[in-house]
Amino acid sequence: MSLDSLADAFYDELCDIYHAEKQLLNAMPRMIKSATDSRLVEALTAHLEETKKQVQRLEAAFEDTAKRPKSKKCEAMAGLIKESLQMMEQEADDQVMDAVIIASAQKIEHYEIATYGTLCTWATSLGYTNAKERLGENLNEEESADKTLTKVSKSVNKAAMVHGG
Amino acid sequence: MSLDSLADAFYDELCDIYHAEKQLLNAMPRMIKSATDSRLVEALTAHLEETKKQVQRLEAAFEDTAKRPKSKKCEAMAGLIKESLQMMEQEADDQVMDAVIIASAQKIEHYEIATYGTLCTWATSLGYTNAKERLGENLNEEESADKTLTKVSKSVNKAAMVHGG
Repeated sequence: MSLDSLADAFYDELCDIYHAEKQLLNAMPRMIKSATDSRLVEALTAHLEETKKQVQRLEAAFEDTAKRPKSKKCEAMAGLIKESLQMMEQEADDQVMDAVIIASAQKIEHYEIATYGTLCTWATSLGYTNAKERLGENLNEEESADKTLTKVSKSVNKAAMVHGG
Repeated sequence: MSLDSLADAFYDELCDIYHAEKQLLNAMPRMIKSATDSRLVEALTAHLEETKKQVQRLEAAFEDTAKRPKSKKCEAMAGLIKESLQMMEQEADDQVMDAVIIASAQKIEHYEIATYGTLCTWATSLGYTNAKERLGENLNEEESADKTLTKVSKSVNKAAMVHGG
C-alpha cells in the first residue's frame, strides 16, 4: 500500500499491532508454562487475559478508519517471539529462567508501548476519538504490565542470585 | 549455552545487545537517507554517533564478565530492522514517511530501553559496577533519544496532516 496520508500510516500501523497481539496470544501460554515463580505465572496469566481484550479493542479501533480489520505480518513481534522461544529452549536453572522470561516479556511490552504511543498520537491528530480511547486503554495496560514485571523481577533476581550469581 | 546462573544470563543478554547495536549501525544510515525533516535528520545523525560510542561501552562492559565480547544474533532487532526497511520501501508522501521513520525509530529505542533496563538491574545484582555504569550511560542516551523523537514528531505529524490527514 502507498502511504499518501497519515491516515494510511495509521491504518498500516494498526494492521501491524493487530497481527502482533494475535502472535502474542499464541506465544504467551509457552512463556507461562516455562515460568516457575508463582507471582510471575500470575502476572503473565493476567496479561494473557488482558491481551485477548486488547485484540477486541483493536477491532473496535479499526471502525474510525472505515476499513476492515486486517492483519499485516509484524516482523518485529515475530523476531521478539523467536528470540523469546530460543531463550526458553536453553537449559537453565528455574530461577534464572524466570529472570530471562521477565526480560523477554519486558522487551515485548516495550515494543507495544512504543507502538501504542505512536498510534495514540496519530489518532489524536486524525480526530479518531473512539480509536484514541481504545488504544489509550491498551497503552495503559502495557505500561502497567511492564511495571508489574519490574516488581516481580526484584524477588526473582534475588532467587536467581542464590542459585549461582 | 546453559543458563546456570544470573551471570550466564547477563553475558548472553550482553552478547545479544552487542549484536543489536552493531546491526543498528548498519541500518541507521538508510533511515537518515529516507528522512526529509531537518530536525529528524539531525536527531538520527546524532544518535548514530551515540550508537558508535555505545558499542565501545558494551565492549568495556564485557570486562566485568571476564569473558570476551561476542555477538549473538539478536532476532528481535533483526525483526525490528526488517520491518523498518520494509516501511521505508513503501511509496509515501515525504512528511508521512518522516512520521513512519519516527515510529520505527521509537520502537527500536524502546527495545533498547527494555534491554538496558534489565542489564542494569542484573549488573547491580551481580556487583558488576563498571558494567552498570557503562550500561546506565547507554540507557540514559536511549531514553533521551526517545524523548527527542517525541518532540520532533509533533511538527512532523502536523506537516503529515497538511499533506493528507
